[in-house]
Amino acid sequence: MYQFEKFDKRLLGEQIEDELLNFIRQEQLEVGQKIPNEFELAEKFGVGRSTIREAVKGLVTKGILEVKRGSGTFVAATQSVEDDPLRLSKLKDKYKLALELFDVRLLLEPEIASLAAEYATQEELEQLKRLCDETEQLYLEGKNHIPKDIEFHTCIARCSKNRVVETLIPVINTAVMTFANLTHRTLMQETIETHRAVVNAILDHDPVGAKCAMVMHLTYNRQALIRRDKEHKKAEMKNKSDDLSCR
Amino acid sequence: MYQFEKFDKRLLGEQIEDELLNFIRQEQLEVGQKIPNEFELAEKFGVGRSTIREAVKGLVTKGILEVKRGSGTFVAATQSVEDDPLRLSKLKDKYKLALELFDVRLLLEPEIASLAAEYATQEELEQLKRLCDETEQLYLEGKNHIPKDIEFHTCIARCSKNRVVETLIPVINTAVMTFANLTHRTLMQETIETHRAVVNAILDHDPVGAKCAMVMHLTYNRQALIRRDKEHKKAEMKNKSDDLSCR
Repeated sequence: MYQFEKFDKRLLGEQIEDELLNFIRQEQLEVGQKIPNEFELAEKFGVGRSTIREAVKGLVTKGILEVKRGSGTFVAATQSVEDDPLRLSKLKDKYKLALELFDVRLLLEPEIASLAAEYATQEELEQLKRLCDETEQLYLEGKNHIPKDIEFHTCIARCSKNRVVETLIPVINTAVMTFANLTHRTLMQETIETHRAVVNAILDHDPVGAKCAMVMHLTYNRQALIRRDKEHKKAEMKNKSDDLSCR
Repeated sequence: MYQFEKFDKRLLGEQIEDELLNFIRQEQLEVGQKIPNEFELAEKFGVGRSTIREAVKGLVTKGILEVKRGSGTFVAATQSVEDDPLRLSKLKDKYKLALELFDVRLLLEPEIASLAAEYATQEELEQLKRLCDETEQLYLEGKNHIPKDIEFHTCIARCSKNRVVETLIPVINTAVMTFANLTHRTLMQETIETHRAVVNAILDHDPVGAKCAMVMHLTYNRQALIRRDKEHKKAEMKNKSDDLSCR
């Protein structure tokens, strides 16, 4: 009976751990930010403080949270080691990080697409086409396409048949998410069209076509990021000058 | 007094942990291989079984060892998560892995060398030159140059000023080590010369020169790997036919 209770308690702790991680992501808490204290979290999730302590302990082990004695519990990373083995989510200045990620993606992903055009199996080609269709469908319905987008890029990397490339998939995923968060998940028509162009070239077993289409895809997104940053800085400048003229 | 003893014990456990890791590497134990049992290890390192248990526990936490109840303790990886965050050392067929690593290095490192030629500081340039000299010196003296070689490639990656590239340094290091183990740490004259060419181009702030010299450096090493594998296969074939003719 005691064992059974213990088992239940563990399950509850894990469940709250997941909810706490979702909370950190939804509130877009950044690395270094403090999370609410035990009392507040216990009330928020409707569980006891011991369960909260267990959930926090779990997230500390996973490198997501960090307890600083006497000052509270802080966000140490926003993704687990498994999802982000290189701890990219710890890096500050998300805009700069997104550009650095584009630099690296531009080195890797065009060549990966080219390898995919050479080595993808029939089954993989069908999966790739399906993922491209599904991402497009979600876009047309105005729904969140990010998980499918990540599946799409992951599938291309798997098709490369290079195991080192496969281990780099989390880097690509982190890049897709960082970009999506900065651009507020708006997807451009160009993204859809270049996704399609990459897939068509891979289906045609055209390595050069796949490579070039991937360069285009990444370049459109990189341009959108730079545009977004310029608008952001302009808005900030305007706010500042409005503040000055109000004085 | 009790605390003090506990402290000492912890230190001894950690020390044995390091020695056990060195033993695994020196014996070139591979992933999946069984390590000697507690009794044997206790005798080997001249410590009690409880210390061995502590060291094993430490290496299990680091993902190096894996305990299978009733059958023993096995190698799960040959590098710690910190040194090998993508768990590349877990991949089987080291020759295939070395080639896959070259594919990825050829995508990344020429461009990294090019960025280094653009962004390296004066201090970094001096460090780079020193590391190149030291690697060459070790080669001429017939000593182990691998740690310096790794420092050399790490320094170039740092000069790129791209933080994502910096997180990829362990991939390059694993590649250098995998290659070195397969070629029995023999260093070619071409390796030394192309190291020098990369450094000279970076010192001259010549991005194209640095990129091309790095392509040459990687290509010489890749060719040496393929040559070595062909010799290895030829020797195997010969052994087989000798066996047959003896029958």
